[in-house]
Amino acid sequence: MNEQTIEKLLKAVKNDDISIANALKKMKSLPFEDIDFAKIDHHRQIRLGYPEVIYGERKTPDQIAQIAQKLLDKKSNILITRANEQAYGAVKTIAPEAKYNVIGRTITIEREHIVPPKSYIAIIAAGTSDLYAVEEAYETAKILGNHVKKVVDVGVAGIHRLFAHLDIIQNARVVIVIAGMEGALASVVGGLVDKPVIAVPTSVGYGASFGGMAALLSMLNSCASGVSVVNIDNGFGAAYSASIINHL
Amino acid sequence: MNEQTIEKLLKAVKNDDISIANALKKMKSLPFEDIDFAKIDHHRQIRLGYPEVIYGERKTPDQIAQIAQKLLDKKSNILITRANEQAYGAVKTIAPEAKYNVIGRTITIEREHIVPPKSYIAIIAAGTSDLYAVEEAYETAKILGNHVKKVVDVGVAGIHRLFAHLDIIQNARVVIVIAGMEGALASVVGGLVDKPVIAVPTSVGYGASFGGMAALLSMLNSCASGVSVVNIDNGFGAAYSASIINHL
Amino acid sequence: MNEQTIEKLLKAVKNDDISIANALKKMKSLPFEDIDFAKIDHHRQIRLGYPEVIYGERKTPDQIAQIAQKLLDKKSNILITRANEQAYGAVKTIAPEAKYNVIGRTITIEREHIVPPKSYIAIIAAGTSDLYAVEEAYETAKILGNHVKKVVDVGVAGIHRLFAHLDIIQNARVVIVIAGMEGALASVVGGLVDKPVIAVPTSVGYGASFGGMAALLSMLNSCASGVSVVNIDNGFGAAYSASIINHL
Amino acid sequence: MNEQTIEKLLKAVKNDDISIANALKKMKSLPFEDIDFAKIDHHRQIRLGYPEVIYGERKTPDQIAQIAQKLLDKKSNILITRANEQAYGAVKTIAPEAKYNVIGRTITIEREHIVPPKSYIAIIAAGTSDLYAVEEAYETAKILGNHVKKVVDVGVAGIHRLFAHLDIIQNARVVIVIAGMEGALASVVGGLVDKPVIAVPTSVGYGASFGGMAALLSMLNSCASGVSVVNIDNGFGAAYSASIINHL
Amino acid sequence: MNEQTIEKLLKAVKNDDISIANALKKMKSLPFEDIDFAKIDHHRQIRLGYPEVIYGERKTPDQIAQIAQKLLDKKSNILITRANEQAYGAVKTIAPEAKYNVIGRTITIEREHIVPPKSYIAIIAAGTSDLYAVEEAYETAKILGNHVKKVVDVGVAGIHRLFAHLDIIQNARVVIVIAGMEGALASVVGGLVDKPVIAVPTSVGYGASFGGMAALLSMLNSCASGVSVVNIDNGFGAAYSASIINHL
Amino acid sequence: MNEQTIEKLLKAVKNDDISIANALKKMKSLPFEDIDFAKIDHHRQIRLGYPEVIYGERKTPDQIAQIAQKLLDKKSNILITRANEQAYGAVKTIAPEAKYNVIGRTITIEREHIVPPKSYIAIIAAGTSDLYAVEEAYETAKILGNHVKKVVDVGVAGIHRLFAHLDIIQNARVVIVIAGMEGALASVVGGLVDKPVIAVPTSVGYGASFGGMAALLSMLNSCASGVSVVNIDNGFGAAYSASIINHL
Amino acid sequence: MNEQTIEKLLKAVKNDDISIANALKKMKSLPFEDIDFAKIDHHRQIRLGYPEVIYGERKTPDQIAQIAQKLLDKKSNILITRANEQAYGAVKTIAPEAKYNVIGRTITIEREHIVPPKSYIAIIAAGTSDLYAVEEAYETAKILGNHVKKVVDVGVAGIHRLFAHLDIIQNARVVIVIAGMEGALASVVGGLVDKPVIAVPTSVGYGASFGGMAALLSMLNSCASGVSVVNIDNGFGAAYSASIINHL
Amino acid sequence: MNEQTIEKLLKAVKNDDISIANALKKMKSLPFEDIDFAKIDHHRQIRLGYPEVIYGERKTPDQIAQIAQKLLDKKSNILITRANEQAYGAVKTIAPEAKYNVIGRTITIEREHIVPPKSYIAIIAAGTSDLYAVEEAYETAKILGNHVKKVVDVGVAGIHRLFAHLDIIQNARVVIVIAGMEGALASVVGGLVDKPVIAVPTSVGYGASFGGMAALLSMLNSCASGVSVVNIDNGFGAAYSASIINHL
Repeated sequence: MNEQTIEKLLKAVKNDDISIANALKKMKSLPFEDIDFAKIDHHRQIRLGYPEVIYGERKTPDQIAQIAQKLLDKKSNILITRANEQAYGAVKTIAPEAKYNVIGRTITIEREHIVPPKSYIAIIAAGTSDLYAVEEAYETAKILGNHVKKVVDVGVAGIHRLFAHLDIIQNARVVIVIAGMEGALASVVGGLVDKPVIAVPTSVGYGASFGGMAALLSMLNSCASGVSVVNIDNGFGAAYSASIINHL
Repeated sequence: MNEQTIEKLLKAVKNDDISIANALKKMKSLPFEDIDFAKIDHHRQIRLGYPEVIYGERKTPDQIAQIAQKLLDKKSNILITRANEQAYGAVKTIAPEAKYNVIGRTITIEREHIVPPKSYIAIIAAGTSDLYAVEEAYETAKILGNHVKKVVDVGVAGIHRLFAHLDIIQNARVVIVIAGMEGALASVVGGLVDKPVIAVPTSVGYGASFGGMAALLSMLNSCASGVSVVNIDNGFGAAYSASIINHL
Repeated sequence: MNEQTIEKLLKAVKNDDISIANALKKMKSLPFEDIDFAKIDHHRQIRLGYPEVIYGERKTPDQIAQIAQKLLDKKSNILITRANEQAYGAVKTIAPEAKYNVIGRTITIEREHIVPPKSYIAIIAAGTSDLYAVEEAYETAKILGNHVKKVVDVGVAGIHRLFAHLDIIQNARVVIVIAGMEGALASVVGGLVDKPVIAVPTSVGYGASFGGMAALLSMLNSCASGVSVVNIDNGFGAAYSASIINHL
Repeated sequence: MNEQTIEKLLKAVKNDDISIANALKKMKSLPFEDIDFAKIDHHRQIRLGYPEVIYGERKTPDQIAQIAQKLLDKKSNILITRANEQAYGAVKTIAPEAKYNVIGRTITIEREHIVPPKSYIAIIAAGTSDLYAVEEAYETAKILGNHVKKVVDVGVAGIHRLFAHLDIIQNARVVIVIAGMEGALASVVGGLVDKPVIAVPTSVGYGASFGGMAALLSMLNSCASGVSVVNIDNGFGAAYSASIINHL
Repeated sequence: MNEQTIEKLLKAVKNDDISIANALKKMKSLPFEDIDFAKIDHHRQIRLGYPEVIYGERKTPDQIAQIAQKLLDKKSNILITRANEQAYGAVKTIAPEAKYNVIGRTITIEREHIVPPKSYIAIIAAGTSDLYAVEEAYETAKILGNHVKKVVDVGVAGIHRLFAHLDIIQNARVVIVIAGMEGALASVVGGLVDKPVIAVPTSVGYGASFGGMAALLSMLNSCASGVSVVNIDNGFGAAYSASIINHL
Repeated sequence: MNEQTIEKLLKAVKNDDISIANALKKMKSLPFEDIDFAKIDHHRQIRLGYPEVIYGERKTPDQIAQIAQKLLDKKSNILITRANEQAYGAVKTIAPEAKYNVIGRTITIEREHIVPPKSYIAIIAAGTSDLYAVEEAYETAKILGNHVKKVVDVGVAGIHRLFAHLDIIQNARVVIVIAGMEGALASVVGGLVDKPVIAVPTSVGYGASFGGMAALLSMLNSCASGVSVVNIDNGFGAAYSASIINHL
Repeated sequence: MNEQTIEKLLKAVKNDDISIANALKKMKSLPFEDIDFAKIDHHRQIRLGYPEVIYGERKTPDQIAQIAQKLLDKKSNILITRANEQAYGAVKTIAPEAKYNVIGRTITIEREHIVPPKSYIAIIAAGTSDLYAVEEAYETAKILGNHVKKVVDVGVAGIHRLFAHLDIIQNARVVIVIAGMEGALASVVGGLVDKPVIAVPTSVGYGASFGGMAALLSMLNSCASGVSVVNIDNGFGAAYSASIINHL
Repeated sequence: MNEQTIEKLLKAVKNDDISIANALKKMKSLPFEDIDFAKIDHHRQIRLGYPEVIYGERKTPDQIAQIAQKLLDKKSNILITRANEQAYGAVKTIAPEAKYNVIGRTITIEREHIVPPKSYIAIIAAGTSDLYAVEEAYETAKILGNHVKKVVDVGVAGIHRLFAHLDIIQNARVVIVIAGMEGALASVVGGLVDKPVIAVPTSVGYGASFGGMAALLSMLNSCASGVSVVNIDNGFGAAYSASIINHL
């Protein structure tokens, strides 16, 4: 907001073009009125350069299909996470080219292909039981326009397995590390690369894993620098961040 | 010591400017030393391209100074975090050019200037009480070779203050968001930029903030995509990750 | 039954329109009944000026219908929360005008219309997945005699959506803010209005949301003054408090 | 500075008692200043109708005094919470009329008296050990322009003590209930009044009170409708909300 | 153990009646050998004067019936807690007089009637949703030989309901208080009686009740003296303790 | 409340002895007016038959002495818990016969000797580090008029030590078990006696004892029936309950 | 890594046999290149001398059978934990000699008999409801080649039952203690033997057992030395450790 | 005192070198003494074959010295953990040969040398800040009669440091792994050895390490088999278990 706005208002008061009560009311909302909404109210896709994402949990297949339809009308690419097969059935009726990843529980509709940068995102996972998060991350990274390489079942209990893939890990532009139980993989990988590492704790485990809490705390306390963390099982979020970095 | 140093050495070998025996002697004294003698990880600097970091907590001034001395012998830049004034006193006797940031509790010794990339890191903080984490992040980012812009006291309770700095935030290459209490700033900023956001929960608050737990959980559950999180009060870790991204 | 009913009764006594014996009989059957016979708190309606509320969780349809029948005999308005469709079936047989809100899981029976004050309650929610709490709050506020305006899907990740509704929010007499995940909306709204804000954390989220804990802690630590909080998913409680304030 | 000041200014403009240029100059120095220069939120006072609040924790006496000085220049009333005696000493040098509440740890400077509404706020506390929160709430309510009545040491273990003050409680416009340990007082009071109840859990207790957690959870789960809750020990927040309600 | 045992052993050594190796072995287990097993190894029923209790959770109907059969052979009275209807079916085939309490989920078989003391146990519960714990406590107290009086639905939100039953509460020899949500009833009752109060937190509630945690912490922090607490939903344990006290 | 009260009120309305407005107001407070306050508002000492207790934590020596003075004026016996030596100094000036237990941090003033029942309370503690809770319980039990026997340092890691005192434990009328760390002693003792057992978890321990949480949970989950639990370190509460039982 | 490797590299640079860029890249991975992978990359069975283990949770019968088939091709013994009957059905088709333990939910295939040492492992459990963990431990210990003795239902509430089996416990080479609820058995057994004790907390219990948390904390805080702990319900892990010790 | 002492005594009895009365008197003064007089568990040493341990926390120097004196009278070796320098001062006056480990905070008095087995215990620690636990474990293992090898500062963030010591780790008979922060070292080491691994989480860390909770949970959820865990910072307990195993 600049002086002109207030000056105009004061003149209007002086000239009886506006009542004092109304002028007062206008001033109360001033600090927001002067926000350049052009700066912030663009459609998310334009602003962030990305497809539209629908979080499928707690939504009926019908609701998901309806939201998808609206977005398709705008020619958006679409990513639906946490989607079950019923949702896929409903979406396929309006977008036959929709693809479903059973393990990752994602539906993707690609209307406009994004040319990925040459560099790739590496997704490293401790065990096969973490695959659901791996696939969610994978599909997210793909629809956002990225090359992706996956390395699964390289948990630290057999650390030679990890070293066998050092090349893939060290040559990535950004690395996603996915692990449940004690989540130690994030620290080990973090110590091996000079690239950003995004860690995804999973809810794989039982007892004192407390639904992924153990892995989460472990990753937050990583002794390796350069590791940041997303929510438990949040493969989508990790890939989203990784994609932003890969497109920088 | 960084890649350039080794590269230069290799070139000297190639050009016969140095004998293989002498080159070997020079190299032996650094990254490999840790295998034969101590375990100070000189090699980390080469592998990860960064100066050496000393975590000052629970270390006496003497211990800190001794470790610093060894690293200085290798011509490393040095960052000491969580350092008190006594530690600074001890370090200054061996490195008079060492600088102390009282608020951030960091000591930095810059022996070799790293030319920063043109892009900058933005550090956004909710309140003046978060300054200790801001300064730790700032000093870390600087010693790692980055331009940094700070915006402090823009908590969401007066959101127009944040909007007044939209330009700085949106033009950064990577954004660090620092907030205590409910940590809502991370989500709001995350929704405004298309750059990687690294969130630092702080222990600022009382009662049900549980030492930063409230802000930490808040940030992990951010409804804005592209936000990853580091440990409570870990300004260093956020800046380390941000610097890696800024140097990509 | 409310104050008016008793007042009318007292006037009838005064005017000899009813014998003291009959008036006594009428009165005995309500607020005092709970002391002599059952413990259904009819008196609450008089004391607090509100309809009777039945918490439907862990109650069979039959139990709910029986309690409702007793209250209907006293001509009370009735609100049943956390009710499933079976409960609605049972209630409809005794009160065909009963209405069921599928999303909010409420049954309402309005026997006596309460004239609402002119001011209104605003219910602001972060996402469509919070609708179950929104509808519970909405039905509660309506049956308690209030005008209500709802604004849904204005989470802070796209904050321009919120600003588009500033008028509705700032002109309300009291504002209910409903959000899951990190619950940041409460702080942002709290900073925009000079009216009481009642925050409802929801269990929407996963992983480190810990069933709504993240949003709850976030709201309790709100950096915005004037925000008070109710239990997770407690749309009813928020609307109840809001209604009291709106009727002041 | 409050609405009246601006209203007066607008009237002066209208009546040609002040030139537009001068009015503009006067206005520029307050709410808008925060956008151009500092970030002290002068506008908040206008927008929310309240004095400026400084959270004293983790701030040095000097810092507090400096912030207070800036606010005094704008003729704001000032409330400083969590302030120690050193802070009071520093503030008194710039505002000799400043008052210190030792128990509540508040400093108040009243430059402009706010005429309170006729209705009052009741502050009800379980024990004398909760006094620190009582006094913080009391001073907050006073500086915000309210009549306040305090009832202390009426914990539920001797419930007749509470009943002895039913009149004060039931005739208030809004009731603040402050209790530590098991926090049961909130539920009992909530069942006795038809006014909004704002509950403040305190950290009074030991062992399984976990720093106020027990009282907090207790109050959030109150079986009495119409009770909302603020952070542990947050007497300020409760009074702030109560004042908003009392001024409606 | 007394000296005689050791003396005898030493003599045996001296007389070569035992080898040194064997004597040494005997001595190693001495401190336990000398326990008067008569003191501790009586059948539980004799030692504690009570029937046998079977915890039915995680046991199949067959397993329960088999254990019951063994105990019936010894003419024990039997109490089976957390039993479903299938378990009841299986037990009835071996003990047709077995009784099932659907709400309390208990099976009782009374082979030998215990004459109860004249004093009675009062069971006070906050709401009808706590009935499952009430009935478990009731059946336990009955089979253990006690008179019991129940007062249900007297939660503190309508505290006059509680006062209407003061006589029953104050004349009991021991009082069991059962409540979920915030569990405030225990403190209020604890302040009204001069008898032992045993509090049972229940898992009734949602959100921040965290499965009964809120009520549990509340009761442990009761400001009323003379209140002790058992596990969440442990109606059995409370009645067991109460019965011991009632039989003193 | 009985019919007569209402009948009288109705007659007064009829005879114009009271306005309808006033009658209405009276009826709103009826459920409380009819409480027999004689039943609940006796002085605590009379009602419960016990001395007055002052919780010394967070109170200054002066405050404690003042409260003590008031109670002494009524000839009460006095127990002050969590008192430091300064408090004792202040109390001794007004009651020279006051006694201080350094370990238990209690001050006791006995003005009127209570003749204890013949039966005794046994206090059993796991280790010498639990002595502070033992002594608090001991002094409480003594001032409340009880014989007490103490058995200390009989933790389950050397269970023969416990058996050496079986007589004292089994002959008590009520047993208090005090233990920190894993609190296993409560279960073992609970299995050995047919008397009420009140368990006191202590904060003795480190690491995963989480300030007594481990012992608390352990005791609440005791596999031995007849064990009830009080707050962590609450020797006072256990002795208070035990005394009530011992005086039955 | 030794000097020769570097020397050779430097010579290659000098002789233009390798580019500087490639030499630099090689040096960056040096610290790992020189790892003697023979030391760490053996097949797990060879390295640890044990059969292959498949964690059956979250795996389909097909996946389990496929993995088993691959391992059988290598003639490994196989242990599948957390397996349901469907998995057993699938495994039996490829290995008819496979055995299923219904309670322990394990499938074992023994292709090569391991001769057990003479000493045995004792498995001690508090209650019959802990049997699922007992059997998992038992099957694990057997397939790993151990003699095992089981003692079940010796919880501390009836401690004489435990003493009746002192011989079995004290003569074992290593003792596994399995208990839910308060887990006190670990401390009592730990105090009775001079052998390693491995404690397994189980999720048996309800309410404040918090899924085994109470037993876990209890065991970690054991006052008996020589007790170490594994995850909740982790019978497999305890037996694995015990087997390693038994084979030393 | 150990078995040899008793054996010698028995031989003396057999050979008439001592009268039965005198032998009895000698024996009475030790393992049985605890039953009659004090409760210091002399018998433990015989039963478990180990010196006496005093937990120094919360004990005054005087108390520690007194207990030590009694034990010295029995010629026991003594280990005092969590001891400060004052305690050492007091102990040295009665046992001048006592040794103090400043970092480990242990006092040791070795009256009788235990010949260690040939195999050794390896203590592996992540960082220098874990040294306090390392030294506590070291002193414990030494006084219990063991060879010990220490490897410190081999955290997983620079995993090549760990590999440099593979020989020491893999040749130990039992391995103690000590780590704070995320505790990942336990899983990595667990995957490298076929020996029992005992993990010690330390409280080293900040923020979401929650006093060692993160490392504790991490170690309990280790994906490597054969890892068992002791309490946070419990170097003593780990070494005690390790020593038992090393002496098998």
